[in-house]
Amino acid sequence: MKRLTVVLAVVTALALAGVATRADEGMWMPQQIPQLAAKLRSMGFEGDPKAFADLTGQPMGAVVSLGGCTASFVSPDGLIVTNHHCVTGALQYNSTPERDLLADGYLAKTRGDELPNAPGARVLVTVRVTDVTDAITGNLDPKLTDRQRYDAIDRRLKERVAACEQGSGLRCSVPSFFEGLKYFEIAQLEIPDVRLVYAPAEGIGVFGGETDNWRWPRHTGDWSFYRAYVGKDGKPAPYSKDNVPYRPKQWLTVAAGGVKPGDLVFVVGYPGRTQRHQSYAEVKATTEWAMPRAIRNAEEQLAILEKLTKQDKGLALKVAGRIQGLNNGLTNTKGVLEGLVKGGSLERKLQAERELADWIAADAGRRKQYGDVLPAMQALHEASLKTRERNAALAGLSSASTYLNAAQTLYRLSLQRPKRDIERDQGFQERDWSRIRATQERLQRTIDPTVDRALLSWAMAKAASLPEDQRIDPIDALVGLRPGMDQAEASRAIDKYLDGLYAGTKLADQDVRLGLLEKSTAELKASNDPFIELAAALEPLNQSIREAAKDLAGAYARLRPRYMEAMLARAGGLVAPDANSTLRVTFGQVKGVRARDGLFYEPQTTLQGILEKHTGEGEFNAPKAQLDAIKALRAGAKTPYLVPELGDVPVNFLSTVDTTGGNSGSPTLNARGELVGLLFDGTYESVASDYLFEPVTTRSIHVDSRYMLWTMSEVDGAGHLVKEMGR
Amino acid sequence: MKRLTVVLAVVTALALAGVATRADEGMWMPQQIPQLAAKLRSMGFEGDPKAFADLTGQPMGAVVSLGGCTASFVSPDGLIVTNHHCVTGALQYNSTPERDLLADGYLAKTRGDELPNAPGARVLVTVRVTDVTDAITGNLDPKLTDRQRYDAIDRRLKERVAACEQGSGLRCSVPSFFEGLKYFEIAQLEIPDVRLVYAPAEGIGVFGGETDNWRWPRHTGDWSFYRAYVGKDGKPAPYSKDNVPYRPKQWLTVAAGGVKPGDLVFVVGYPGRTQRHQSYAEVKATTEWAMPRAIRNAEEQLAILEKLTKQDKGLALKVAGRIQGLNNGLTNTKGVLEGLVKGGSLERKLQAERELADWIAADAGRRKQYGDVLPAMQALHEASLKTRERNAALAGLSSASTYLNAAQTLYRLSLQRPKRDIERDQGFQERDWSRIRATQERLQRTIDPTVDRALLSWAMAKAASLPEDQRIDPIDALVGLRPGMDQAEASRAIDKYLDGLYAGTKLADQDVRLGLLEKSTAELKASNDPFIELAAALEPLNQSIREAAKDLAGAYARLRPRYMEAMLARAGGLVAPDANSTLRVTFGQVKGVRARDGLFYEPQTTLQGILEKHTGEGEFNAPKAQLDAIKALRAGAKTPYLVPELGDVPVNFLSTVDTTGGNSGSPTLNARGELVGLLFDGTYESVASDYLFEPVTTRSIHVDSRYMLWTMSEVDGAGHLVKEMGR
Repeated sequence: MKRLTVVLAVVTALALAGVATRADEGMWMPQQIPQLAAKLRSMGFEGDPKAFADLTGQPMGAVVSLGGCTASFVSPDGLIVTNHHCVTGALQYNSTPERDLLADGYLAKTRGDELPNAPGARVLVTVRVTDVTDAITGNLDPKLTDRQRYDAIDRRLKERVAACEQGSGLRCSVPSFFEGLKYFEIAQLEIPDVRLVYAPAEGIGVFGGETDNWRWPRHTGDWSFYRAYVGKDGKPAPYSKDNVPYRPKQWLTVAAGGVKPGDLVFVVGYPGRTQRHQSYAEVKATTEWAMPRAIRNAEEQLAILEKLTKQDKGLALKVAGRIQGLNNGLTNTKGVLEGLVKGGSLERKLQAERELADWIAADAGRRKQYGDVLPAMQALHEASLKTRERNAALAGLSSASTYLNAAQTLYRLSLQRPKRDIERDQGFQERDWSRIRATQERLQRTIDPTVDRALLSWAMAKAASLPEDQRIDPIDALVGLRPGMDQAEASRAIDKYLDGLYAGTKLADQDVRLGLLEKSTAELKASNDPFIELAAALEPLNQSIREAAKDLAGAYARLRPRYMEAMLARAGGLVAPDANSTLRVTFGQVKGVRARDGLFYEPQTTLQGILEKHTGEGEFNAPKAQLDAIKALRAGAKTPYLVPELGDVPVNFLSTVDTTGGNSGSPTLNARGELVGLLFDGTYESVASDYLFEPVTTRSIHVDSRYMLWTMSEVDGAGHLVKEMGR
Repeated sequence: MKRLTVVLAVVTALALAGVATRADEGMWMPQQIPQLAAKLRSMGFEGDPKAFADLTGQPMGAVVSLGGCTASFVSPDGLIVTNHHCVTGALQYNSTPERDLLADGYLAKTRGDELPNAPGARVLVTVRVTDVTDAITGNLDPKLTDRQRYDAIDRRLKERVAACEQGSGLRCSVPSFFEGLKYFEIAQLEIPDVRLVYAPAEGIGVFGGETDNWRWPRHTGDWSFYRAYVGKDGKPAPYSKDNVPYRPKQWLTVAAGGVKPGDLVFVVGYPGRTQRHQSYAEVKATTEWAMPRAIRNAEEQLAILEKLTKQDKGLALKVAGRIQGLNNGLTNTKGVLEGLVKGGSLERKLQAERELADWIAADAGRRKQYGDVLPAMQALHEASLKTRERNAALAGLSSASTYLNAAQTLYRLSLQRPKRDIERDQGFQERDWSRIRATQERLQRTIDPTVDRALLSWAMAKAASLPEDQRIDPIDALVGLRPGMDQAEASRAIDKYLDGLYAGTKLADQDVRLGLLEKSTAELKASNDPFIELAAALEPLNQSIREAAKDLAGAYARLRPRYMEAMLARAGGLVAPDANSTLRVTFGQVKGVRARDGLFYEPQTTLQGILEKHTGEGEFNAPKAQLDAIKALRAGAKTPYLVPELGDVPVNFLSTVDTTGGNSGSPTLNARGELVGLLFDGTYESVASDYLFEPVTTRSIHVDSRYMLWTMSEVDGAGHLVKEMGR
């Protein structure tokens, strides 16, 4: 408890003085919260911290996953609130050339108007979390080779999942925590009929666009509403007109007041991935190789896409999601790199690892227990560098081309299907087939030969320029490339090869693609589709890379849990595990931050800022109805959502809670567990915290529930939903 | 005293509470300061306000003009401190391909190393200000026509200046205050031998470049030092090795401490021009026509210059000043436009004018006295709109082409020279000839046929596209243009004409140009220089425009003083006149500002921000010596300039003082009249205050004297100058 005790003492002292200067690290597992009771009480929490450990009680039972985003029930009739940017798929799916829901928003006046969702959409309600560490890693013969260890664990995981799902109607997973030191079995109810109820117009829900993304001050109305539907028997069922609203056991109450600076807030959600427990060498390689590469690649792809879509609005709509994703990742990666290198996080990481090594070296028992871990991890890491250029270029081909990616999925599925289910690779078991199909259906909205070819051509040029010892041999053979080849010559060879690929393929046809989903390898080969042929040619190399990855994972399964054990022993106990898309609780204060020398981010923004930023076009184009409502407010119109101290309705706020991607849509709760906002972003200065938490500058960005309610009541005519939420 | 009384009461109350929320309008004439004694005392001033009225005492006697910039004496040996951006000319003049003083800075180790200045540089010390209103506008026959009125006033002004300068060795001017309601005669000592003593490197003096220009947070070391030299007799004399340092009667003391938030500060200087007393119609035309036009033109010219200089470093150096000027003006104009239109200043201006009209209409006496003024001004304004496109396009030719501008100066001088001096136009009298020559010498460093032709071609294309009723007839005739001409055809005609112009001219030759300065009109014509021919062809039109302007000025001389009288009568008395490049005093507080919703500009920046912004290249490239000194400080090195509350050395600060262009280099003084910094910029949110003062957001930007002294001592080895300043 060493590190946290120190933080706790500081926070307590400052909380009494009304000023806390640090953000609060920790995406806690719900069962850890009761151990933080003292800290919580010092921050003004009056409830029972044990409540957070009860996943089916208040408030935890109300919080659900959308897979990639978080959401929460806000009415007994299954009404769900999440971020606007979490419902983009549903908006696109229901849009037509005549009705652009992304631009105009949508409001179902009655339940009958609530719209079906895109294939694959679902709500996941966590119902049970069980520590199964012993079942997964207990009694493993220490004499196992690394690969045998991997296979044993992999088998146990699959058996565990199968047993959990068998006849329960639940969706189960067994993720690792603390780098394989712990495993928990998570059982979730999966509801596939999730309908679109309400999304504000783009000028509210995406106000600020890419320009404001990751930035403060912020004025984004990033909320939308779904409703979960189930069969008449109350059980999850695919979309059907006859389905009825799901009646959750728990739903959140919207707070009557809101938050003010200094208030304690909780965020409950499903943060995706953090890397705080990586070794220094791994983070260093990320900053020196992976991130600069990712930035370069994103910029190059964006340039290609912008050129292609400049004159073609239809194409622009198709690739809007890809462009948004690339931009989002680009800004995030730049921010992480800046924080790690310039902000000095990498230096601090090195320092911490040196201290860990010294701590191990200082004691004979510790030397015996952990002495080999850091050097062995270092050796594994170094070995992995030898093929990283090739492996990244190979993966780049599939991520550039939707055609190739689809072909590879079809081909690999055909190889896996003949096996017994327990022998199939994770992701290709029977339980995964419906999701694989949904993905193949969904990509119909974005697949485009012009864009695909441009990006695959770009990715192949990368493969062409690989060093001699890291070539992708099947590509060299098929395309006719060789190391050191003249760029123009390579370009001609790639062009010629791509001519054949795109002329011969039928994979852009949804019926053809879905039809191939259930075909055998021989039948796929007989289709003579050139993308299937390419996938088949690449499969042996991909397979060998996966085998090597399994060997490596087996070795890490031997080392990382002990590395983590040493870190935890040194830290003295209560540490939050890295985020892994499982349910977590984080808490902190509503609080501004001195973002840069001379510049202070105030903790709250208001409607005034919308007027300041509104330009009437592009990313800053507030709807006229909203501008009118703001003017009415200026002219003296009354609203319960106005905060006298601000002289305005609050729009967004900052807090010190510890969040990351996947937390989007998470409910923000006050000390009484009531909804006061939705988490939707972090500041640019915070993103490096995914690698090393920076307590001074890290801030999360929330939309204030009062802005949501004001807009629903005064702008969007969604008063019936406000009423359904009991306000 | 109505308006100011209200402000005063508010400021007093808030000052007592330790919080003032408004910036302080008023670029006061020194003689107005004693009337502000109560306000000054409420803000913590303990000295005698009457001191400011004594132009030869402390501190006013120490403050000088550089013509366009302000500066101040800081030692008994004539050492002068001003902004780095005010000595650019001297740095360029002394640079060679081998020694780039702009990039590297300069430090004279001994007085013998102090470098001569560019032609035309001088220091102006204001020694006397006399109210001469009666002599200029008294006893004018009310029956005079507008033109007669103009001529009478013009004659009196010239006589007054001549009498003031006669035998005194002083430079005199008689500017108008309050739109012609008042005239003051200003007598200045002009010292032409001003040498460069010290300028920091670009990485300090221009740190942040165009990116940070007009912006906060700011970290610019915008200071440099000159020294004034005079003949051995103590009288001003041109540069000579035998000259000796000037010994000023007054010089400023550098404060031992610095400022802290809330402190009272004064700025004494020569603000150039504000337009706060323009009518609503005039400001509206500025926002709707002049500013959008200026923005468009600046952007177009910048695009041309950037294309031309991209590959040519020599050319880039030549036009660096023009590019900087265009960028600076562009950002300023955008800021003004934003503040006036979006910020609502224009609306407030309209409101104020309506109130003035109502106030006039409400009383029979006032109706009689002022009733005709606003309608008559409106009519004059509307008449002036009829030729504005043509006049602006014509002026655009001269400002685009240095060749044409020079030719026009030579030609007009030849027309004026034969007249009696008192009959010559202002600017072309004998007293102006040395400045005209210096300008013709100075432009040798920037004149370039490629750049000149590109810009003149652009300006001629503007003339080609003028509407039919506003053509520049001589250009149409010479170039072969006509209204509605096809763009490509016009372009070919312009190209052909420019071929002849640049092939035949010798004006780029300094000897030729200076030789023509004293030639008669006939001799100039005999030179057959095509630019002289163009100037001669344009002269009749220019002359007629000048005559019309004189008619208009005569009409305004009848109306504007009464407009101003009405405004003053309504305001109740103490109002500062618009800036007119004369000596002014402004005061306010060191204070941050909520710049935008959710964003607070802290009042001070520190060395920390230099580390944050430093990229090692381009505009954010702090010198290694400075980075080392900052690191040494972090490692525990001691310095008297560190502020414990900040844990760092302060770099720049914000204040509520009211300043504008021309104030650059002005000393910032504390309540004891000691130097605590230099004014060098205003925030983007402030620039519209040139048209209507915005008390909430207006902030000036200063460099902190402690940053200057720390850099001089710890980075630049200029300890001898610190010592000379008595620190």
